[in-house]
Amino acid sequence: MAARVSGADVLTPPVYGGMKGGAYKPMTEDQMQRVLDTALDLLEEVGMGGPVPEFIEVVTDAGGWMDEHGRLHFPRKVVEQIIDTATKEWVWHGFDESLSAEMGGEKVHFSTAGAAVLRLDHESQEFKFPSARDIYDSARLADTLEHIHIYLRTIVARDMVESRDLDLMTAYAVMMGTSKPSGTSFFRPEHVHEAVAMFDMAMGGEGEFRKRPFMTANATFVVPPMQFAYETAECMVAQVETGFPINLLSAGQAGATSPATLAGSLVQALAECLSALTCVNLLNAGHPCLMGMWPFVSDLRTGAMTGGSGEEAVLNAAAAQLLNWMGLPSSVAAGMADSKIPDAQAGHEKALTVALAAHAGANVVYESAGMLGSLLVYSHEMMVIDNDMLGAINRTIRGVDVSDDTLAKEVIRDTIFGAGHFLGSDQTLSVMQSEYIYPAVGDRQNPSDWQEAGSKDAKDRAHEIVRQTLSTHFPTHVSHETDDKIRATFDIKIPIEHTRA
Amino acid sequence: MAARVSGADVLTPPVYGGMKGGAYKPMTEDQMQRVLDTALDLLEEVGMGGPVPEFIEVVTDAGGWMDEHGRLHFPRKVVEQIIDTATKEWVWHGFDESLSAEMGGEKVHFSTAGAAVLRLDHESQEFKFPSARDIYDSARLADTLEHIHIYLRTIVARDMVESRDLDLMTAYAVMMGTSKPSGTSFFRPEHVHEAVAMFDMAMGGEGEFRKRPFMTANATFVVPPMQFAYETAECMVAQVETGFPINLLSAGQAGATSPATLAGSLVQALAECLSALTCVNLLNAGHPCLMGMWPFVSDLRTGAMTGGSGEEAVLNAAAAQLLNWMGLPSSVAAGMADSKIPDAQAGHEKALTVALAAHAGANVVYESAGMLGSLLVYSHEMMVIDNDMLGAINRTIRGVDVSDDTLAKEVIRDTIFGAGHFLGSDQTLSVMQSEYIYPAVGDRQNPSDWQEAGSKDAKDRAHEIVRQTLSTHFPTHVSHETDDKIRATFDIKIPIEHTRA
Repeated sequence: MAARVSGADVLTPPVYGGMKGGAYKPMTEDQMQRVLDTALDLLEEVGMGGPVPEFIEVVTDAGGWMDEHGRLHFPRKVVEQIIDTATKEWVWHGFDESLSAEMGGEKVHFSTAGAAVLRLDHESQEFKFPSARDIYDSARLADTLEHIHIYLRTIVARDMVESRDLDLMTAYAVMMGTSKPSGTSFFRPEHVHEAVAMFDMAMGGEGEFRKRPFMTANATFVVPPMQFAYETAECMVAQVETGFPINLLSAGQAGATSPATLAGSLVQALAECLSALTCVNLLNAGHPCLMGMWPFVSDLRTGAMTGGSGEEAVLNAAAAQLLNWMGLPSSVAAGMADSKIPDAQAGHEKALTVALAAHAGANVVYESAGMLGSLLVYSHEMMVIDNDMLGAINRTIRGVDVSDDTLAKEVIRDTIFGAGHFLGSDQTLSVMQSEYIYPAVGDRQNPSDWQEAGSKDAKDRAHEIVRQTLSTHFPTHVSHETDDKIRATFDIKIPIEHTRA
Repeated sequence: MAARVSGADVLTPPVYGGMKGGAYKPMTEDQMQRVLDTALDLLEEVGMGGPVPEFIEVVTDAGGWMDEHGRLHFPRKVVEQIIDTATKEWVWHGFDESLSAEMGGEKVHFSTAGAAVLRLDHESQEFKFPSARDIYDSARLADTLEHIHIYLRTIVARDMVESRDLDLMTAYAVMMGTSKPSGTSFFRPEHVHEAVAMFDMAMGGEGEFRKRPFMTANATFVVPPMQFAYETAECMVAQVETGFPINLLSAGQAGATSPATLAGSLVQALAECLSALTCVNLLNAGHPCLMGMWPFVSDLRTGAMTGGSGEEAVLNAAAAQLLNWMGLPSSVAAGMADSKIPDAQAGHEKALTVALAAHAGANVVYESAGMLGSLLVYSHEMMVIDNDMLGAINRTIRGVDVSDDTLAKEVIRDTIFGAGHFLGSDQTLSVMQSEYIYPAVGDRQNPSDWQEAGSKDAKDRAHEIVRQTLSTHFPTHVSHETDDKIRATFDIKIPIEHTRA
């Protein structure tokens, strides 16, 4: 039994990134068709404000037009053509190729995202301004957490004053911290080019990133309602030029920057994402993209965002289902607890939102680990706890295996007329590592054993893992020699002295 | 806007008990058919051990037989006939009729259940032995919690030594504590008759309970694998005689008392519940029952129960789907956190298990509030926090309303060419109380406001609600005069002096 517990004889883990979701269908087909039709109407009749020249050129060439308000209109048939021809499946490479993730086809992955402006410090229980070094720490912690499949920078490096430093040092910290598929974002298009040069250097030569892009750009390309964010749109052009996969991210907030009705906020987010998908595909047919429908929700009493609500949960799940129904690779946001600390509120807000998004089949469930305070706060300890939650959710995605063996008719009969219980049966031992997973920080002791172990709550136990990991895990997928070259070229401002140890 | 926030002009709440689930379907029809076929095979070929004479009589009369091992065999066609003819819909009355709950048809309700042997005391953070008075307190707290639709006794009254006192005082405490539909359980059949006499007295006369039964009996009728619990079976006969609705509860523990494979544990639980449904319906055709498939799970490393796992979540959701597919009123168990306190682990374990059970369409999701330590521990504060969670989950059950109004095409267009945001739009104000719900204890402040308010976590805020409620809320649906009669007749051992205030 010891060998089984250690997993020594097990080849395939019970859960992994890319299992197929889609068993949860919050909307009917008719409802989804009406959302799509309304979005297509809006794109043709109202269009998008603030387009960059590159977008205007390709869309008007395809039959669109600019109006007297400076809005770019997208004919329905052009958008429908793009939906048909856009890439349906693509590979989000890991720096370590064995960790690559396949986008499309209801395959579910869990990713972090950002961009918290505060970090909850466990020992002081105070909010601190995060640094670029904190991004590196967060990335290497995520690098060890089995159920986080993708790492996107969780926090804003508030020690980086210039936008170039912020963009470059963030990209560097993420790349150095994890060999999983990863992501970042950019303020200026020239930083995209510079980052790709850095990635090429890390991968061993010019053009390497284009061949095997291990990072995806989160492009929050819209200032809702239906207005392009000009500089981000410029970055998207640079991303198309460099072969940088893009998460086309619309994050309207229902009741503030999108309609308060859930259906209306879906319509607007879909219209916005389709405008971006159309522009990108007209610039470069088949460019790898995610439709990033992240419909956020307001607490209508205050107008403030509420990331942990039931409205948020069903809305992002509906977005994932809608995109799957349209056949487009999807990303949504879930796990954005309103709670400021890892408490019971945070736990239930996260599990509800992430579970529904995952079961609806989102290719990437962003924000699924580490986030608090409706994205204002990040916590290492929360990320460790969330990793357990993601594992449990992924176990439910796997579902129930049904076969003559698992139906267990003979095992039941034999047990009734034999031992009377199933504790030591061959079948029980054989499924220990194939049907079941075990939490890293979740406690399953009985109450008295738990008390004897110090009555620690989840965040205290998680902190022990955080301390242990951050003092020992220094990824080396980018060699020290290569790092020296990168540092000599890009004025790297993050101390990662420990990698030299 | 103040009037809207107060809900003064709103008639139908955004969420309520009995909304339709079923959007989550973890199993295929073929998988469910195989589970059903295997269960029917086992009932015919292996049968149930330990049947009471009443069960033997009606089942052998219908074509079944006893074998040389004392096992009662159920022919497939008899069980299939019962599945066809059993009651598909019935009303679980509230003591207050306006709170009644309709069983059947994928209508989802949230209930507490038990039976914890410890109570977590918030102020000392220690585990205490619960009393019958604690049941009364727990019931009247649940009486005020909007998203708990049914209250079943959560804890074992450890101050009651005799089984009669335990059964009667528990039933009394539940009845006095809440006017919602409620539930309890019994050790001896004569206590069933005595409790019904007490209920009749509370309702105003003999035979009243039979007309409008407001309590359901949790009958854990099986000692798995496939052996009747003799005394509970005797209680079921008494429940049939008194018109007491029954939750036919099978709680095998995968890897210990049921197969370690998830499919096998479903097979066994279904076989067991069908045997009970058959016996009850042969005794009294159409008797109101819930099929109580509560497949529990072991941590196979230790053999201990783990109520908060992903395996548990998908298993109970699959049970709910299976029972809905068979058309039978269903109950499952979810919310059984492994964590011993209301922390992030408890939160995510609860939300995952409850959300999936609810979306699979369980008529009653038992154990959905207040429980910790895999059912060993109950906490008032946890129940208050869980109430928020249940509200949010119920909001996701409601789904996305799609209509010309909610699709909001004109609202989006008008906003783009008007205010530029949706904050003050008529639509936003109008959906504030119809599309959105608000937590009672969940915090949505920004980090600095939350700090200024004392940096309280969910359990500290919940404790304030617990203290306030328990010092003020004393239900009076049973009048003091009637209570005096009950006390004079049944030797009531619970002090509830405050109802006299």
